[in-house]
Amino acid sequence: MADLSFTDRARYIRELSEFLRIPSISSDPARRPSMREAAEWVAGQLAFANGRVVETDGHPVVLGEWLALAGSPTILVYGHYDVQPPGDESEWTTPAFEPSVRDGRIYARGATDDKGPVLVPLKVAEAFLAQDGALPLNVRFLIEGEEEIGSPSLARFLDEHRDELEADLVVSADGAMWRPSEPSIAIAAKGLLALDVVVTGPAADLHSGRHGGAVQNPIHALARILAGLHDDDGAVAVPGFYDSVEPIARADQEALARIPFEEETYRAEVGVPELHGEPGFTTLERLWTRPTLEVNGVEAGGWFTVIPRRARAHITCRLVPRQDPAIVFAAIERHVQASRPPGVEVGVEAAPGGVPAYAIPADHPAVLAGTAALRAVYPESEPLLVRIGGTLPAATLFEEILGLKTLLFSFSTADEGLHAPDEFFRLRRLDEGLRAWAELWRLLALDVTPNRLE
Amino acid sequence: MADLSFTDRARYIRELSEFLRIPSISSDPARRPSMREAAEWVAGQLAFANGRVVETDGHPVVLGEWLALAGSPTILVYGHYDVQPPGDESEWTTPAFEPSVRDGRIYARGATDDKGPVLVPLKVAEAFLAQDGALPLNVRFLIEGEEEIGSPSLARFLDEHRDELEADLVVSADGAMWRPSEPSIAIAAKGLLALDVVVTGPAADLHSGRHGGAVQNPIHALARILAGLHDDDGAVAVPGFYDSVEPIARADQEALARIPFEEETYRAEVGVPELHGEPGFTTLERLWTRPTLEVNGVEAGGWFTVIPRRARAHITCRLVPRQDPAIVFAAIERHVQASRPPGVEVGVEAAPGGVPAYAIPADHPAVLAGTAALRAVYPESEPLLVRIGGTLPAATLFEEILGLKTLLFSFSTADEGLHAPDEFFRLRRLDEGLRAWAELWRLLALDVTPNRLE
Repeated sequence: MADLSFTDRARYIRELSEFLRIPSISSDPARRPSMREAAEWVAGQLAFANGRVVETDGHPVVLGEWLALAGSPTILVYGHYDVQPPGDESEWTTPAFEPSVRDGRIYARGATDDKGPVLVPLKVAEAFLAQDGALPLNVRFLIEGEEEIGSPSLARFLDEHRDELEADLVVSADGAMWRPSEPSIAIAAKGLLALDVVVTGPAADLHSGRHGGAVQNPIHALARILAGLHDDDGAVAVPGFYDSVEPIARADQEALARIPFEEETYRAEVGVPELHGEPGFTTLERLWTRPTLEVNGVEAGGWFTVIPRRARAHITCRLVPRQDPAIVFAAIERHVQASRPPGVEVGVEAAPGGVPAYAIPADHPAVLAGTAALRAVYPESEPLLVRIGGTLPAATLFEEILGLKTLLFSFSTADEGLHAPDEFFRLRRLDEGLRAWAELWRLLALDVTPNRLE
Repeated sequence: MADLSFTDRARYIRELSEFLRIPSISSDPARRPSMREAAEWVAGQLAFANGRVVETDGHPVVLGEWLALAGSPTILVYGHYDVQPPGDESEWTTPAFEPSVRDGRIYARGATDDKGPVLVPLKVAEAFLAQDGALPLNVRFLIEGEEEIGSPSLARFLDEHRDELEADLVVSADGAMWRPSEPSIAIAAKGLLALDVVVTGPAADLHSGRHGGAVQNPIHALARILAGLHDDDGAVAVPGFYDSVEPIARADQEALARIPFEEETYRAEVGVPELHGEPGFTTLERLWTRPTLEVNGVEAGGWFTVIPRRARAHITCRLVPRQDPAIVFAAIERHVQASRPPGVEVGVEAAPGGVPAYAIPADHPAVLAGTAALRAVYPESEPLLVRIGGTLPAATLFEEILGLKTLLFSFSTADEGLHAPDEFFRLRRLDEGLRAWAELWRLLALDVTPNRLE
């Protein structure tokens, strides 16, 4: 069989730009029409597969399927059309929703998370149909609109649409290669737990001159609580937080040590004066195998002379296998309440969307097929099996509800400004992704029986 | 001499409403036209005194003078036409800049701080002129537009306009009675020191999943720094902070103990579960005689899963006599830098407008005249000499630059929501203020020679 040819690069970039111009911010209720528009755009791309926008309890899911090869394996391609908010627009070189191509990269919110990577399987299918009149295997598509808010409607959706989602394997266009320099497949993703700590003091904002010194300031109380969440050395100080975390197996430790990772290069990349974290582990072990607790935001008072009535912190934990989000939440809640400073009330509020960690064995046949497909595109470097600190709630749900493992086969790269200003997608990853996905589909069709994928 | 009659109450309230409708927020550059409008409004009220809007380096000052009584004392009436920002508009029962009269109160931003109290001397002058054709003494007016941002232009303005400001005493319509139930005169105000602590970590916001656990989170670092500013019991933990603070004199301690102050009533009023502050002092001693350090706001990250690049806290200290703002700033900077957590850079930035504390002796002739004027209006309760935790930079500047003491003679009350949502002004304080200011002017004219006021 001849190589597929992807001759329409300019059109692909034009279409990606169209997609990126839609501000499909799932966390912003005012963007509901844009969410709908983005879903319709994806459904339009899936016309060959009966693409359709299907309602959920939240933002719609786009489904589609091409199932013409009876007896062949069926994969379910997963991705998402929603994006993070742009944050402070002044920190963007060009506006977040006006895609701009510079130096072989396309800059826009969602460029790499996840609209660029989602475009890849859509264009691979288009090319197979144009050249061969058929795909090499059966393919279903599920492109959701709530990944950036923790996929709250997906569990129920999978449960209610399981007939439309029958497959042998999920292949995810979400996730990310860990570096631009080496091809990689992520075989594990951390879980997520989100919560808010809310400190309430006086009945109303108080003038800090007239009342300072007589009442506990909710910001002072919150600072004490947040300072008590970590030890000086960076370890999480919440009793029980690490309880069910298994020590790193000797084999995993050795495999991690073989991964090329220069701490100094990483330090310079993220731009900090020194690295910092839980002692007793290498930086890579901390990033890939240790759970974390990070305060993502604090909202308290302002620039006037007040003692604010309320101070609030938003916290997310990244969990590793065997950590139960509910148990970790309870441990944090207990610790925060036990350290409540005098003179205030403290609430610990769970945010929806707790997700356990996800992993696929390194020798799973889908991982082997993925590795082989990468080798075909990157003959000069052996693909690495890596782990990601980010969370893929969908992968956990596919396993729990549909009984399917997920192969993370994304052409995003971890340095492309995910969730940050100036997010971008390398256009060469588009080219590489098209060839690799085509090869993967062929390998899954030829080399892997449906049975072996389960 | 017959009592002045203030028969135009409905008009006074109408005029106050006009004044309150102007959103003269000095800290908001977008409100520059409203600042100008408010200044013009005051100048219009001062037509009888050649009222005029005079430029400064910042927002304009309104000046005016009625000096027809050669040989009589001259007072300089001080107030401000600027207001605080409304804060979260959703916390206001009625909009901040749409004055609303309910239950004998007028609600609006600036109602009590300071537009209501400023109206009082304007209407007293109007009534004297209508009834007697003259004021009882010479009166100058200085109504500034930068009180809420620390009066940054006032020092230079006073210096450059000292010829237009010659007087024997300043009488301030700013300040506040400490309670609605007893008349009071404040004989001391705390100084102010404002600063920001800025913690900078990575070169850009980082995805908290992909990078969590490997770098110091600026919010964690800021929380540790803020938590280190106070001891567990509420005392300020900055070495040197209390160095030049004098112990409370036995006589002052006894005078404070005689002030009717129920801690439980105060606790219920501010709505906290328990009072909290520096140990070894009564609540009233803490409020009136001890310096404080309060974090007014924190700005860091947001509700997405990031490790933010930067976290910032805004802090104000209230100072007592003998504390030098520059020395206290240096002590805080030293302490913050000494407690810098690893992995971040920390900056301590002074905000402009440091002001030492202000005090007038309890037996100063102006205080005696003020007390007598209050007795005339409130025959049933002996006026209290109190102190305020708020700051009056202007009073310090009048003393330093013009050599004038300031009598704080405001009809604001400390419980009227200063700097908070639903700020209000009791309309009975308008009536009481008109009578008291009229009496004060008569007493200052008759009983106090220019010489005694200096």
